[in-house]
Amino acid sequence: MLNPHLRPFQSALADFIARRDTPRQYLERCIERIEAMEPAVGAFVVHDFAAARRAADESTARWQASRPRSRIDGMPVGIKDIIETIDLPTQHGSPIYAGAHSGRDAASVWALREAGAVIVGKTVTTEFAATEPRGTRNPHDGARTPGGSSSGSAAAVGCGMLPAALGTQVIGSILRPSSFCGAFGFKPTLGAINRGGSHDGLSQSAHGPIAASLEDAWVTAREIADRVGGDPGFAGLYGPSAVPSPVRPTRLAVLETEGWSVASDEAKANLAQALERLRKAGIELVTRRDEKSIEALEHALERSNPVSRAINGYESLWPMGSYESKDASRLSASMRARLAESRQMTLGDYRALIEERAAVRERHGRLMNEFDACITLAATGAAPLGLGSTGNPVFNVPASMLGTPALTLPVLSAESLPLGLQLIGFADQDARLFAHARAVLALVA
Amino acid sequence: MLNPHLRPFQSALADFIARRDTPRQYLERCIERIEAMEPAVGAFVVHDFAAARRAADESTARWQASRPRSRIDGMPVGIKDIIETIDLPTQHGSPIYAGAHSGRDAASVWALREAGAVIVGKTVTTEFAATEPRGTRNPHDGARTPGGSSSGSAAAVGCGMLPAALGTQVIGSILRPSSFCGAFGFKPTLGAINRGGSHDGLSQSAHGPIAASLEDAWVTAREIADRVGGDPGFAGLYGPSAVPSPVRPTRLAVLETEGWSVASDEAKANLAQALERLRKAGIELVTRRDEKSIEALEHALERSNPVSRAINGYESLWPMGSYESKDASRLSASMRARLAESRQMTLGDYRALIEERAAVRERHGRLMNEFDACITLAATGAAPLGLGSTGNPVFNVPASMLGTPALTLPVLSAESLPLGLQLIGFADQDARLFAHARAVLALVA
Repeated sequence: MLNPHLRPFQSALADFIARRDTPRQYLERCIERIEAMEPAVGAFVVHDFAAARRAADESTARWQASRPRSRIDGMPVGIKDIIETIDLPTQHGSPIYAGAHSGRDAASVWALREAGAVIVGKTVTTEFAATEPRGTRNPHDGARTPGGSSSGSAAAVGCGMLPAALGTQVIGSILRPSSFCGAFGFKPTLGAINRGGSHDGLSQSAHGPIAASLEDAWVTAREIADRVGGDPGFAGLYGPSAVPSPVRPTRLAVLETEGWSVASDEAKANLAQALERLRKAGIELVTRRDEKSIEALEHALERSNPVSRAINGYESLWPMGSYESKDASRLSASMRARLAESRQMTLGDYRALIEERAAVRERHGRLMNEFDACITLAATGAAPLGLGSTGNPVFNVPASMLGTPALTLPVLSAESLPLGLQLIGFADQDARLFAHARAVLALVA
Repeated sequence: MLNPHLRPFQSALADFIARRDTPRQYLERCIERIEAMEPAVGAFVVHDFAAARRAADESTARWQASRPRSRIDGMPVGIKDIIETIDLPTQHGSPIYAGAHSGRDAASVWALREAGAVIVGKTVTTEFAATEPRGTRNPHDGARTPGGSSSGSAAAVGCGMLPAALGTQVIGSILRPSSFCGAFGFKPTLGAINRGGSHDGLSQSAHGPIAASLEDAWVTAREIADRVGGDPGFAGLYGPSAVPSPVRPTRLAVLETEGWSVASDEAKANLAQALERLRKAGIELVTRRDEKSIEALEHALERSNPVSRAINGYESLWPMGSYESKDASRLSASMRARLAESRQMTLGDYRALIEERAAVRERHGRLMNEFDACITLAATGAAPLGLGSTGNPVFNVPASMLGTPALTLPVLSAESLPLGLQLIGFADQDARLFAHARAVLALVA
C-alpha cells in the first residue's frame, strides 16, 4: 500500500489550469502540514515562509496567465543543507558552517528557481552528508531515525510537508531515508544532475529528488537538467520532458546482495509477496540460483561497501583535512576517525579501488540487454529505533558504486512502518527505469 | 636563451642541506624582488609576508633538523586568486567576492602546506579566470599584458618574485601567460591534480604550476597529487617523485594548428631555428605535409576554439547565472554577453560538443605509439601591447581540448621578449612529457 501522506504536485496541475487550485493554496496546505508536524519531526534547519509565499504568488500569477515556466512552476521544495542557497544559510550539518552564507544558489537550486519552483527551506543533513545524525525524527515514529544523510528531505516528503526535496547520495543517502520515511527516492545516473555548489563532490555522489510520486521525481530532475545540465563533462539526464509512460518489464534480476543476510524476515517476506505479484503478471524473475551472470554480479558487488567507503574516505581527505587543520574540535569524533583512517591510504591504493569499481560497473553494464532492471529491498527493514545512527545503507551501496539510476517505491512495510522496493537501472537509462517502475508500481501498490 | 630572471627552488636544496642557505633566506630574496618589482607589475592581489616568514622559519628548522617534509618544504608559492586559502581572501577577480573568505584551503593549497610550502600571497586572475583583465603588467615590458587568466602567477615567476605559483587552464590560462612572461608552464593531464576548492570546475579545466624550472614544476604537481590525489574519480598524476630523467625524443609531430595563420613571422622563424637544432640532434620531425595522421589531427583540431568556448559557456551557465540573478551589474559586460550567448544552448547542443571533443581526443590518443610528443609555439608571438586584452590563446586551446599534458619552455623570443616553445604529450603520460622536455630544453636553451 502506498504511503497515504504523500501529496504529489503533478496531480495538482490540472486544478491550477482549471482555476480550482493555485500554487499559493498548495503552499498553504504544505505550510499547515509543516506547522503541525515540524515540532515532532525537525525536518528543517531553517525555512522562510514569507519568501515562499511571495514566490508562490508569482507562480500563481503565471498559472493564471496560462504561462507557467515549467511543470514544476509553483512546486514547494526543500533543499538538503549541503546545497547552497542564495537567501538561506548553508550549514552542512556542521558547526564549522554555522550561519554561513555562500551568496549564491547551487546549480540545482538556481535551475529550480528558474523553473518557478518555490524554495521553502533547508532540510536537515547529517554532518557533511556523512554519518553523524543531526536530530531529525522519523515522522511515522518519533523514536526512530528518518535515515540519512538526506534526513530532513525524506522526513518532510514522507509526511506530506512537501511534494519534493533535494537529496544527495554517495552510499545510501537518498534511498535509505526515502525507504524509512515512505517517499519515492531517485538517485540518477552518475553525473546526470549538475552538483555545482553542493558539498557532494565525491566521485560516486549524485544529486536527486525525494518526492511524493514518480512523476514529481522525474520532472524535478528533468527541469534541473534542462537548465544546468549534468556535471561538467557528463551528458546529463537523458529522457523526455514528461514522466515516461509505463512499460511492463519482461525480465528482472532479483538481487540479494550483502544486505540479504541482515534483512529482517518480515522485509524479505514482504518483498517475496511483491515479487509474486510481478510473477503472476507474467514478469520473469531471475536470481543468482537461476543464472550465472547474476551470480557473478552478486559476487562482484560483495565488496561494494568497503570499496565505496575507502574511495569516499580518500576523496574526503580534502576538505576534511583542511577543516581539521583549522579546528579539529569542530569535526565529530566519527569524522575525525574516518579522516585518520583515510590518511593511511596512498594515491596508488585509491587507483586500485577506482579500477575495481570500474570493473564492477562494466560487468553490470553487460547485463543491459538481458534484463530490464534489478529489483531488491531498499533497506533491511523498517527504520531502526533510536536517533544515534541513521541505519544500515547496505542495500543502497551497490547502485551507488555502480553509478546507475536507482529508485525506491514506498510500497512495502515492516513493523507497520514504510519499507521501500528498490529498482536499479542501467547507466544513462534513467527514463527506461522510470517506465518500468511505473508498471511495477501499478502491480504492487 | 633561458629567461635569466628565473630562480628555481630545487637548485637551492643542496645549499639547505649543506647549511649554506635556508628557506627563510630564500624567502627574503623573493620578498626583496617582490618589493622591487611589484609596484610596476601588480602580480599580487594580497600577500602576507609575516605569515610567510613564520612558515619559512618553521621550514628552516625542519631542514636544519634534516627532516624536511618534502622536496618543496620551504618553497615560496603564489596562489591564483580563484583558489581558496584559509588565511587570505579569495576574490576571484570579481567585485562579487570582494573581501570574501571561504574559511578553508583548497585541496591544492592544503596539500602544499602539508608539504611545507610557504604561501606568500594570492596572485591576480582575470574575472573568474575568464577574459576580463585585472591590471597586472608584463614584468618585461609594463606596456604589455602578462597574459591571462593566471596573470599574476606568471608575472611573479617570470621576473623572479617566486619559484612557483599555481595557475589554472581551461583555454590557455597557464601556457599563454607563461609564454608571455618567460616562465615554465605545466598544464597536467585532465584530472591529474585535485581542483577541489577552486573556481575552475569546468570539464576541461586543469590546475597546474607555473614555475622557474621543469624540476620545480614537476615536484610541485607531484607533491600535491601525493597528498590529495587528482579530481575525484580520476587516477591522479602518474610518475615518479623526482623529476623524470631526460629522454631524447625519437619522433616529434610538429603542429601548426589554427594559430599558424596569425603567428608572427619572427615567432615562426624562431621556432624553425629551434626545430633545426632538434633535427640536427637526430630527432625526426614530422609535419602535416609528411604524414596523413598529422594532417588528420590538424584537421580535427580546427574546431578546438569554438568547441571549447561553447562547452565552457554552457558549463558556466551556473554559477554565472546565479550571480547575474543576484546583481548583474557586478559581472563584466563581456561575462554577461557570454552568458546571454550560452543561454541559447540546449543540453542536446552541449552533448553534441562533448561527443565531438571525445572523438578528437580519441584521434590524438591513437598517435601515442607513433610520436613522442607534439611540438609547436606556445603563443603567436611576444605579449601584445596594451592591458585591455590578455592576448590570443589560439596555440593553447588544442591541448586544453585534448585534456593532455602540455608544457611551455621559456626558450624562444620575439620582439626581444619571451616566447614559449610548447610540447604536448599524451593523456596520463605527464612523466614521459617531462622526460622529453628536459632533453629538448638541453638542446635548444
